[in-house]
Amino acid sequence: MSAPLFDKVALIGLGLIGSSISHATRRAGLAKSIVGSARTPETLAKALKIGVIDKGFGSAAEAVRGADLIVLCAPVGVCGALAQEIGAHLKPGAILTDVGSVKAAIVRDVAPSVPQGVHFIPGHPIAGTEESGPESGFAELFDGRWTILTPVPETDAGALRKLTTFWQKLGANVEIMDPEHHDMVLAITSHVPHLIAYNIVNTAAHLERVADREVIKFSASGFRDFTRIAASDPTMWRDIFLNNREAVLEMLGRFTEDLSELQKAIRYGDGDTLFKLFTNARAMRRGIIEAGQDTSAPDFGRARKTTGMGSDQR
Amino acid sequence: MSAPLFDKVALIGLGLIGSSISHATRRAGLAKSIVGSARTPETLAKALKIGVIDKGFGSAAEAVRGADLIVLCAPVGVCGALAQEIGAHLKPGAILTDVGSVKAAIVRDVAPSVPQGVHFIPGHPIAGTEESGPESGFAELFDGRWTILTPVPETDAGALRKLTTFWQKLGANVEIMDPEHHDMVLAITSHVPHLIAYNIVNTAAHLERVADREVIKFSASGFRDFTRIAASDPTMWRDIFLNNREAVLEMLGRFTEDLSELQKAIRYGDGDTLFKLFTNARAMRRGIIEAGQDTSAPDFGRARKTTGMGSDQR
Repeated sequence: MSAPLFDKVALIGLGLIGSSISHATRRAGLAKSIVGSARTPETLAKALKIGVIDKGFGSAAEAVRGADLIVLCAPVGVCGALAQEIGAHLKPGAILTDVGSVKAAIVRDVAPSVPQGVHFIPGHPIAGTEESGPESGFAELFDGRWTILTPVPETDAGALRKLTTFWQKLGANVEIMDPEHHDMVLAITSHVPHLIAYNIVNTAAHLERVADREVIKFSASGFRDFTRIAASDPTMWRDIFLNNREAVLEMLGRFTEDLSELQKAIRYGDGDTLFKLFTNARAMRRGIIEAGQDTSAPDFGRARKTTGMGSDQR
Repeated sequence: MSAPLFDKVALIGLGLIGSSISHATRRAGLAKSIVGSARTPETLAKALKIGVIDKGFGSAAEAVRGADLIVLCAPVGVCGALAQEIGAHLKPGAILTDVGSVKAAIVRDVAPSVPQGVHFIPGHPIAGTEESGPESGFAELFDGRWTILTPVPETDAGALRKLTTFWQKLGANVEIMDPEHHDMVLAITSHVPHLIAYNIVNTAAHLERVADREVIKFSASGFRDFTRIAASDPTMWRDIFLNNREAVLEMLGRFTEDLSELQKAIRYGDGDTLFKLFTNARAMRRGIIEAGQDTSAPDFGRARKTTGMGSDQR
């Protein structure tokens, strides 16, 4: 147990990420008290009931009063409005951060509302599940995962150190990057993959010649791994694409260029090109396993459900 | 333990699928003896040494002599040549099947070499890992997974029943389908997903503005789930695309049409279209989880490696 880093932590938004930050903060003893606000009274009541927050507030402006660390855990699209709402109520010396999946847009939308003397450091924990809501959070979500912080040139070094320590004690590895580079890296590692996953699920759902139940039944052949990432929160993802447009369109352009080449190789029966390309892809996979970012166990080590899978699925 | 269904099973090809069929056959006591052949002497020696086969042969023609069940466990592209080689040596009344991921091309390439009195029934177990070779097989690979059999109109009903029983006793659920429909279903559930997974890995590997090590480091944000399926055997996948061209190109055409629409929605900031599409994708995901074909556990229930993931990854 560490000494509390902060007296009062305010979580603005109490979904998967907000509630997991709360659990991990308590696990490490990083705050004397955790307060919060949520978009709906239902979420706020649920979070209070299950102990995600010690005290709940009807507005973000009230929740941040006197807080030493404020974490915006809301979709990227509303962070600008939240910053306008809370700006005047932030305590001098407080650290304001967020957990959004894009960073340049957050700097653009939030920074103008942050008063002098408050340390604004955008952040992005790379962790998630397909669940949402305050009940979905758990203390281990950030363990062994990366959190990227994207300070701007004028960021206070002491505040950056403190926020880095906070994330490390939540279990994460911390990387520092500038906001624009973050957005480019995430466009290829996360945003475009999610987009094409959403897209193939959509394509599969609208075929005349293959029934949805067949797609579902035989999804273990590759398709299901795409559906997991296509199950994430739609509001969150809409906001990501609207706020990282340039980088996503650039990466998507590359992707479709490369795909056209593959399509042509298939059309003309060019086996050598296909073989070469498929072989190259294995090297990247090996790198990911060696870096401890995945397991090569069958089925990703999914728990096997071998019972009850017979007749009810026919 | 069942009474042996077959006296002698011959496995032509002793990689992941061949060796797993052996282990699962022994687990269920389905054969008195299991023999086999492999493309290379090294694979054959390894398979013999670890007990995947009781007896090994230098050629497929020798291996199939006297066998009651012959399973071609080789890449789709070589099954035609194998059938030519073994055709004259097949025992009357024997069942010949395969495990290839395309079926119409297998019927086209293999059927002409099958003599009268031998029952040829193409098959496709939908199961796999990213490993290959005789050491990668295990008895549980087919448990709770689907195997599709694609008999042709003249297929003997008794032989079909026997092969169905065989796969069920290996742990699989069996579905009967015609070869062309199989290829269409697999094009959307497996072949196109693999193609776009290979493609995005390739795109990511050739960016100037994002380093490979960054892609690897932050791959947990979505990318890594694509790399797993892009790590499968390149020869197998080359053959699949060369032999299911029409269905793959049809599905790929749909995919790129849909992707263009999404791209346009991003370019013009059309949040409503994005939100609607992302919401629809969740329904398919729910279907897959309800059908027992995946788990919604965080990280697919991947075993967590929280130790040793700190400084060595920075």
